[in-house]
Amino acid sequence: MYRPTSGLDSPRFVGIRTFMRLPLITDVSGCDAFIVGIPFDTGASYRVGSRFAPEAIRSISAMIRAYHPFHKFDIFDRINVADVGDLAVVPGYAESSLNRITQQLLDLLEQSQGGVPIALGGDHTIVLPELRAQVAYRKQPIAVVHFDSHSDTWDEYWGEKYTHGTMYRRAVEEGLIDTAHSIQVGLHGSAYDDNDWAQSRTLGFATLTLRESLDVGIPATVARIRERVGDAPVYLSLDIDVVDPAYAPGTGTPEVGGYTTIQMQDTLRALGGLNYVGFDLVEVLPQYDGPGQITSLLAANLCWEFLALTALRPS
Amino acid sequence: MYRPTSGLDSPRFVGIRTFMRLPLITDVSGCDAFIVGIPFDTGASYRVGSRFAPEAIRSISAMIRAYHPFHKFDIFDRINVADVGDLAVVPGYAESSLNRITQQLLDLLEQSQGGVPIALGGDHTIVLPELRAQVAYRKQPIAVVHFDSHSDTWDEYWGEKYTHGTMYRRAVEEGLIDTAHSIQVGLHGSAYDDNDWAQSRTLGFATLTLRESLDVGIPATVARIRERVGDAPVYLSLDIDVVDPAYAPGTGTPEVGGYTTIQMQDTLRALGGLNYVGFDLVEVLPQYDGPGQITSLLAANLCWEFLALTALRPS
Amino acid sequence: MYRPTSGLDSPRFVGIRTFMRLPLITDVSGCDAFIVGIPFDTGASYRVGSRFAPEAIRSISAMIRAYHPFHKFDIFDRINVADVGDLAVVPGYAESSLNRITQQLLDLLEQSQGGVPIALGGDHTIVLPELRAQVAYRKQPIAVVHFDSHSDTWDEYWGEKYTHGTMYRRAVEEGLIDTAHSIQVGLHGSAYDDNDWAQSRTLGFATLTLRESLDVGIPATVARIRERVGDAPVYLSLDIDVVDPAYAPGTGTPEVGGYTTIQMQDTLRALGGLNYVGFDLVEVLPQYDGPGQITSLLAANLCWEFLALTALRPS
Amino acid sequence: MYRPTSGLDSPRFVGIRTFMRLPLITDVSGCDAFIVGIPFDTGASYRVGSRFAPEAIRSISAMIRAYHPFHKFDIFDRINVADVGDLAVVPGYAESSLNRITQQLLDLLEQSQGGVPIALGGDHTIVLPELRAQVAYRKQPIAVVHFDSHSDTWDEYWGEKYTHGTMYRRAVEEGLIDTAHSIQVGLHGSAYDDNDWAQSRTLGFATLTLRESLDVGIPATVARIRERVGDAPVYLSLDIDVVDPAYAPGTGTPEVGGYTTIQMQDTLRALGGLNYVGFDLVEVLPQYDGPGQITSLLAANLCWEFLALTALRPS
Amino acid sequence: MYRPTSGLDSPRFVGIRTFMRLPLITDVSGCDAFIVGIPFDTGASYRVGSRFAPEAIRSISAMIRAYHPFHKFDIFDRINVADVGDLAVVPGYAESSLNRITQQLLDLLEQSQGGVPIALGGDHTIVLPELRAQVAYRKQPIAVVHFDSHSDTWDEYWGEKYTHGTMYRRAVEEGLIDTAHSIQVGLHGSAYDDNDWAQSRTLGFATLTLRESLDVGIPATVARIRERVGDAPVYLSLDIDVVDPAYAPGTGTPEVGGYTTIQMQDTLRALGGLNYVGFDLVEVLPQYDGPGQITSLLAANLCWEFLALTALRPS
Amino acid sequence: MYRPTSGLDSPRFVGIRTFMRLPLITDVSGCDAFIVGIPFDTGASYRVGSRFAPEAIRSISAMIRAYHPFHKFDIFDRINVADVGDLAVVPGYAESSLNRITQQLLDLLEQSQGGVPIALGGDHTIVLPELRAQVAYRKQPIAVVHFDSHSDTWDEYWGEKYTHGTMYRRAVEEGLIDTAHSIQVGLHGSAYDDNDWAQSRTLGFATLTLRESLDVGIPATVARIRERVGDAPVYLSLDIDVVDPAYAPGTGTPEVGGYTTIQMQDTLRALGGLNYVGFDLVEVLPQYDGPGQITSLLAANLCWEFLALTALRPS
Repeated sequence: MYRPTSGLDSPRFVGIRTFMRLPLITDVSGCDAFIVGIPFDTGASYRVGSRFAPEAIRSISAMIRAYHPFHKFDIFDRINVADVGDLAVVPGYAESSLNRITQQLLDLLEQSQGGVPIALGGDHTIVLPELRAQVAYRKQPIAVVHFDSHSDTWDEYWGEKYTHGTMYRRAVEEGLIDTAHSIQVGLHGSAYDDNDWAQSRTLGFATLTLRESLDVGIPATVARIRERVGDAPVYLSLDIDVVDPAYAPGTGTPEVGGYTTIQMQDTLRALGGLNYVGFDLVEVLPQYDGPGQITSLLAANLCWEFLALTALRPS
Repeated sequence: MYRPTSGLDSPRFVGIRTFMRLPLITDVSGCDAFIVGIPFDTGASYRVGSRFAPEAIRSISAMIRAYHPFHKFDIFDRINVADVGDLAVVPGYAESSLNRITQQLLDLLEQSQGGVPIALGGDHTIVLPELRAQVAYRKQPIAVVHFDSHSDTWDEYWGEKYTHGTMYRRAVEEGLIDTAHSIQVGLHGSAYDDNDWAQSRTLGFATLTLRESLDVGIPATVARIRERVGDAPVYLSLDIDVVDPAYAPGTGTPEVGGYTTIQMQDTLRALGGLNYVGFDLVEVLPQYDGPGQITSLLAANLCWEFLALTALRPS
Repeated sequence: MYRPTSGLDSPRFVGIRTFMRLPLITDVSGCDAFIVGIPFDTGASYRVGSRFAPEAIRSISAMIRAYHPFHKFDIFDRINVADVGDLAVVPGYAESSLNRITQQLLDLLEQSQGGVPIALGGDHTIVLPELRAQVAYRKQPIAVVHFDSHSDTWDEYWGEKYTHGTMYRRAVEEGLIDTAHSIQVGLHGSAYDDNDWAQSRTLGFATLTLRESLDVGIPATVARIRERVGDAPVYLSLDIDVVDPAYAPGTGTPEVGGYTTIQMQDTLRALGGLNYVGFDLVEVLPQYDGPGQITSLLAANLCWEFLALTALRPS
Repeated sequence: MYRPTSGLDSPRFVGIRTFMRLPLITDVSGCDAFIVGIPFDTGASYRVGSRFAPEAIRSISAMIRAYHPFHKFDIFDRINVADVGDLAVVPGYAESSLNRITQQLLDLLEQSQGGVPIALGGDHTIVLPELRAQVAYRKQPIAVVHFDSHSDTWDEYWGEKYTHGTMYRRAVEEGLIDTAHSIQVGLHGSAYDDNDWAQSRTLGFATLTLRESLDVGIPATVARIRERVGDAPVYLSLDIDVVDPAYAPGTGTPEVGGYTTIQMQDTLRALGGLNYVGFDLVEVLPQYDGPGQITSLLAANLCWEFLALTALRPS
Repeated sequence: MYRPTSGLDSPRFVGIRTFMRLPLITDVSGCDAFIVGIPFDTGASYRVGSRFAPEAIRSISAMIRAYHPFHKFDIFDRINVADVGDLAVVPGYAESSLNRITQQLLDLLEQSQGGVPIALGGDHTIVLPELRAQVAYRKQPIAVVHFDSHSDTWDEYWGEKYTHGTMYRRAVEEGLIDTAHSIQVGLHGSAYDDNDWAQSRTLGFATLTLRESLDVGIPATVARIRERVGDAPVYLSLDIDVVDPAYAPGTGTPEVGGYTTIQMQDTLRALGGLNYVGFDLVEVLPQYDGPGQITSLLAANLCWEFLALTALRPS
Repeated sequence: MYRPTSGLDSPRFVGIRTFMRLPLITDVSGCDAFIVGIPFDTGASYRVGSRFAPEAIRSISAMIRAYHPFHKFDIFDRINVADVGDLAVVPGYAESSLNRITQQLLDLLEQSQGGVPIALGGDHTIVLPELRAQVAYRKQPIAVVHFDSHSDTWDEYWGEKYTHGTMYRRAVEEGLIDTAHSIQVGLHGSAYDDNDWAQSRTLGFATLTLRESLDVGIPATVARIRERVGDAPVYLSLDIDVVDPAYAPGTGTPEVGGYTTIQMQDTLRALGGLNYVGFDLVEVLPQYDGPGQITSLLAANLCWEFLALTALRPS
C-alpha cells in the first residue's frame, strides 16, 4: 500500500510536489485510485490558465493529512493510491487532446482494472474524454453527478463543438451518460436565455439549482442526489465555480453567489456509499487565486474528500 | 432597443469594454436606463483609487448574460439600455467636480426624459451630485435606500464639508432627500462615538444596522425597506463595503462582518416594484481586489440586479 | 488616560503606525492593557512570515475607531491602553527567543502590575513564553481559551520540542495551564491520526470541534466556554486559522471550512465578564493576504474585541 | 483627422478604454493606420492569457501623449488613426481563428486601401493570418523584421502545425515572406538544439542574435536591419519577450537577458523611413505583469513608436 | 546624537516603523536633518495612492545600515537626524493641504534653525509648500535640482491650478525659485506638444533631458548640475518616475525608459558639497509596486543618499 | 544518461516539477551532477520564505531547453544529471538542520563519487553544511567563489552563531575554505561599519566590490576570479541578491544597484574550465517575486549555467 509522506516525517514543504507527497508511479496495477493531472485548458471561453492547476493543487496538497476526522479513518489504510503525474495534452488542439486523454485514461483504467481516477483539471472539457474512457472500459453509460454553476450543455460556441461549455451535450450525444441517474447541482448566475438550464433537463439530466438547493438545505440536496443516482456506476465532476468566489476566486468563469466551503464539504461527506467510478475537479486557475492560493487549497481538500468517497464505495 | 453583445456571438474577452458590451452612445434619448461611470475619488478618507472602478467593473461585466433566471426575463427585452462612458471629473477638486457631475447628469436626465442612471463610482461623494441632478430634474426630494456599513452623515472632516463621509448630511441640508421615506441599511463596524448612527436618525433617516438586519433576516429587512419607501421616487445607493470583505475585499474603508453576496442578491431581488429613479454602486477599489477581481465581479452583478429592478418599476 | 488619534483629528493614513495610532510608550505603569508585537515565526512548520504581522496589523488598525457599538462604550474611556512596540526575538533560535520573550513580558507584567498584554504574533509558539510570564507573575496556572483549527498538542516535530504545533503540550508539561478550566474551540481539518484532538483531552483540555460548535450554534458554544472557564484567570489565544480561509487567507497553515467573521465576532462579544489576564492573535502572514489585507484587518478588529473584553473584566 | 482625447482635456482615467482614447470606429476608410486587437492565444505553448492583452495595453495607453519628442512631431497631425476594436477569434480553434483573422484583416486593408494595422496580440501565431491578409491584399510577399527571443520556425509541436512557435515556417511555406529582405533580431535563450536559429537561416531569414546585436551595438544593429530590408514593403513584428524580463515580466515564454527598454526605443526610433505595411506587438500576458503593469505600459509605448514609424513612411 | 537601531542590535523586522528605526521625536531642536512624511496625494492626475508611501518607505528602510561605503562614513556620526512622523494633510483639498504643509514645515525649520527636511511624499504637489516654507524661513528664493521625467510646469489641468503637474510654474510665479541656478534633469516620455519641456526653459530653468543626459554620461550630467547650482542654497526634488519602471514600477505616471538605479546612485553620490536646504522623494505608490516593494526600497535608499549629501554640506 | 523531457516531446507545463523535468532519482551513482533542493530558511534575518524556492525554481525550470547556444553543446550529451529532490531539514532549528544537511550531502557525494551538487537554497546558511560535506568527502579545504551583495562574515547576530550572515566566518573557523584561492564578488549596499567588507579580507578572502567590478568591467572581473582560483577545487555560491532588484526582486535582503542579468550571464559563461566541486543558488523568495516569477526564472537559468560549467570542468 502506498502512503503519502507525513508532515511528521518531514516538513511539508520538503520534496517534489506530488499529490499529498504520494509516490510518483507509472504502473497503476493494484491501485484502487490514482491521482492524474489533465492540464488541458484550450476549451476555456473566458479566462484561461488551468493548465497550471494540477501543479498548484499538488503543491498545496502537501498540507493535507491522511486521517479523515469526519469519516474517522485513515484514507490510505483503506485504499491504495498514488500519483501518476499528468497526461500529455496538445494545447491549442481540442480534438486531438481529447483523443489523447481518452486513450491514456483508458490505458490506466485497464492497467488498474478499474481504479478510480481522481483527475485534476484542466478546464471542464476534460469530462468528455474521461467519460469516453470510462464507457470504453465499462461498456455502459455512466451516471454523472455534476456540481457546477453552469449547465455546460450548450450546443456550440462560435461554430465549434468542443469547448468547456458544450461537452455535456457531446457526452449525451455520444451515449456516454446514463442521464436517468444523473443530476446537475448548483446551477446559478446569469443566463443566455430561459433555456440554459432547461436544455439539461431536455437532455435527460435532473437539475437542482443553487437556489433550490439552498432552499431545501444540504441534507435534502444530498438525498435528492442519492435518490437520483441509486446504485448506478457514477462519475462525480466538480467545477470549482459552483463554490462562491469568496471561497474560490481562482477560476475562469466565476459566478457570484455559490456554495460555501462548509456546504460543499457537508455535501460530499454525506455522499458516501455510491458506486463511484471516477472524479474530477476542474476549472481552477492559479493565476487568479491570490497569494493565499485558497482556491487550490480548497480543490486539494475536495480531492481528499473524493479519496474518502472512494474508500467508502460499496464492496 | 440596444442589446449587449452575447458571449455566444463572440468570446466575452473580445471588444472594447463597455458595460456588458452594450453599445457606447452619446445620445441617451429613448433610453430607459444608462450606464455611466463617475470616476471621482477625491473624497476618499483612507484608501483611494476608485477612479479606476468604472473600468474594472465594465471589464468584468463582459461575463454577465442578459437573461435573469430569478426574475425570468431577458433584461434587454424590457428596457432600453446603453453605456454613455464616463463623466468628466477634476481629480483633487471636490467642489468643482461635484458641480460638473451634477450638470452632466442633469443633461442626461433631460435628454433621456428621466432615464435611470446606473452610476459606477467613484467614491461615495458622488451621491451628492447625483441627488442634486435628480432633484433639479424632478423638482422634488428623493427617497434614498442606502446600503452601507457607514452612515456617511458626519458634518465635516478636518474642517472640510465635501467628503465621502459627509455627503448625506450635505444632501439633507440641501433638501435633496425625502428622509421620511429613506433608510440606511447594513451599518456596522467600529464607531467614532455613540452618535455615528444616531445622527442619521436625527437627520430623519430610518436605520437598520447589519446586526438588526441579520437578527430579523433578509425577508423582514426587505419588508422594512419597502414599508419605509412606499411609492416615493427612490434612489438606491450601494456602498460595496456593506458586503463582507471576504466577498468584497477591494474597497476603501472595509469593515469586517458584512452581508454575504447571497444575502445581498436576495435583498435586491426582493425589492422589485419600487419607483426607482437612479442607482449607484460605489467604493470599489480595483487595486485592493486581488487577481480574481471578485469585488468588481460582484459590483458588476449588482448593477445587473439594478437593471432588473429598473425593468420592474411600476409603469 | 491614553487615547488613539481619531480619524476625525487627522486622516487615518497619517502618522507612524502604532496600534490604532495609540501612543508609543516604553513605561507601562498605569496601563490596564498594552499592545505588544512578538514577531517570532521560527516555529512555523509550513508557510512562514508572521514576523511581519505586527507591522501589518498595526498598519490597518488605523481604520478602527474607539467606540464599540455592540458594547456601547468607548473602549478608551474605560481602560488605559498604549502600544509598547515589539519584543526583541532571535529569528532562527526558538529556545533563546522563548526565554527572551518570557523575560520581557514578565517585566511588562510587573511594571504594569498585571496589565493585560494584547500580543500580536508571530506564530503560535509564542503562547508558551506568554504563559510562562503569566505564571511567573501570578504564581498559579492559567486557564486557556484556545481558538484554533489545530490542537497544537503534538509532542514533537522531527525530533524537536519547540514549534508552533507542540507548545500547548510543553505548557501543560511545565504546569502552566489550568487545564480543568481550559478549552480548545474550532478544531477542524485533516488529521495525522485519530489522536490529534484526543491528545488534547488526554492532557486535560476540553475540546469543541468546529463541527460540534456549528452544530450547537454560537450561543451554546459561548455557554460551553463560559461554563468551562468559570472565574479562573484566563488567557485567550486566537489562531487566525480558526477562521475560514475566505475570511482569513493570510495564514500559515490554513484549513478550509472555518468560522465566518461574524461567528467569530459574535463569540467574542458574548465572552465578556471573564477574568482575562492576556490575549494573543497569532499566525497572520501578510505575504499571503492579498492586496486588500483582509486577514490583517480582521486580526486588528479581533484585537479591538480583546480590548473590549479587557474593559469588561470583573472589577 | 481623428485625434486622441488629451489628458489636458479630461483626466486620463476618464472614458472607455480605446488605444490612447482614440475614437472607436467601424469604418476605416481614410485611415492611414488603425489599432486592432487580436485576442487570440490558443497557440501558446506555456503560459497563456494574451487574450486579455489588447484590453490591458489599451487601458494603460491612456497615459501616452500625442507629441513625440524624439521625432519632434505630433503623430496625429501627420496620420489619421483610430481604433477598430478587436477581431473575433475562436478560442481553442487555431485554424478556424486564423481564417477568421485573415478575412477580417483583409476587409480592413481593402476598406482603408492599405491602411497600416497596428495589431495588439494575442500570441505570436497571429503573424500568420496578418501576413496572409497582407499578401492577399498586396499580391506580393512581404519582408519581415522580427524582434523576438525565439525564431518561431520549428516545424511542429506535438504533431500540430499551427502554434506560436511554428508560424514563421508556415508563412515561408505559404510564400508569404520575402525572406531575402527579412531578418530576425534578438534571438537568445536556451535552445532545443543547434538548429533552433540555423533553421531560420535555412528558410532564408537573416538572423542577428541578441549577443551579436549587443556586441555590435544598437546603431550597427539598425544599420544591418535597414540594409536587409531596403525599400521592400515590410512588416514589423515585435514579440515583447525580446525585452529583458526585468522590463517585460508579463509574457508567456520569457527568456532572461534581453534588450533594455531604452535599447528597444533607440532601435525603433532609428528605423524610420522604411516602407511599413503593418505592425504587431505580441505575447503580452497581463496576468503575469504585476500591479504596475509595466509590460503593458512598454507595449503601449512601442505601439506609439509604430505609429511614429508609420508617419515616417516614404510617401 | 540620535542613532537608528542597528540590525545587529535587534532584527530589522522588530519595532515600530520609523525611518531606519530612528527615534520618533516631536521636537527637532538640534537636528541637522529630519525625516518627515507628507502623505498628500490629492494632486495626482492618473494613478493615486502615494498617501501610503511614507509608511512603505519607512517600513523597508529598516533594511538600510548606517555606514555609507562610497562616502566612507557613518552618516549618524556626522549629522543629528530623527523622524518627526507625518504632517497632517486634508485629502481632497489641495489648497487647504498646501497651507497646512507650509505652516507645519515652517515650524519645523524654525524649531531646528534650518534643519534639512528629508520629505517622503506624497505626490509632487508637495514641492510647492516645501518651497514656500523654505522661502518663508530663508527670505530668499531657492535653487532647485529637479529629477523627473516630467517638467511639471504646465499652467493648469482642467481649469485648476494646484496639481502635481503645475506646481513648479506656481512656485516660479510665487517667486520661490532661484531659476537661474535651477535645473530639471531626466525629462523623457511622450509630450502634449513641443512646449512641454520648452516651457520650463521659458520659466528660467535649465533642462537636461534623459536622452541628453545619457548621451553625455553621468559625470557630465553631474558637472552640468554642479555648474548650474553653484553655491546657491538648493532644494533637491526627486520624482521616482525619473527612474525606469523596471527599477521603480510603483509610481503614478511611469514613463518607460528612465535611469537605472546605478545611474541614479552615481549621480547623487557625485553631488556632494552643494548647499542643500531640503530634499524630497515623491510619487511612490506602494499599491503598484509588487510584493518585492523594490520601488519603496529604492526610495528609502535614495533618502539615505540624501542624508549623506546633508552630511557633506559645506560648513 | 538521463535527459530532461523536451518541450518538443510534451508541453512544458505537463508533468511533475523536477528540475527541467529531469528524472527524479534516489540513487546518484553514475551522476556527474545532481540537482538537490535544500529548503532551509531558518537562518534568514529579515524576509523569510526561501523554503519554497526549490519548488519555484523547479517549476519554472521547465522552460529551459537542453542546448546551450553560447557554449554550443547540449548539456545532457556531456554530463549525466538528475534531480534527487529535497534534503530533509528541520525548520526552526539551525544547528540540527545543518548537521542533517551535511550528512545527507556527504552520502550523495560518496554515492556519486564526487558528483557535483547543484543546490537550490534555501537561505545562504546552507553553504556551511555544503562545505562541511565537501571537505569531509575531499579531505581538503575548498576554494570558494562567492557572488553576493553581502560578505556574510559577521561573527554573530544577537548572540547566535549560525545565521545567513555569519556562516562564511564559521566556515573559515572550521577550516573548510581555502581562502587563498577564494574571492567574494559583487559586494554592495549600506554597511554596518567600515569593517563589513574588510573583515572578509582579514579572514583571507579576496574581495571585489560591485563598484570595483563595474569599474573594471566583466572581462577583468572574470580574469580576477580565474587568477584567484587557479586550479583549486572550487565551490561557486551565488546569492541572488547580487543581482539588481529590478532583475531579482524576489529575495530576502535586496540591495539596490546590483548586476544586470546579462552581466551575470557573461560572468558565468566566461568561468568555464575551473575545477568545480559544487554550486548553490540561494536566497530566492518566491513570495516576493511577483506573478511573472522572474527571480525564479533567473535562478533556474543560472543553475543551467552551473550545469554547463560542470560540463566544462577539466577532465
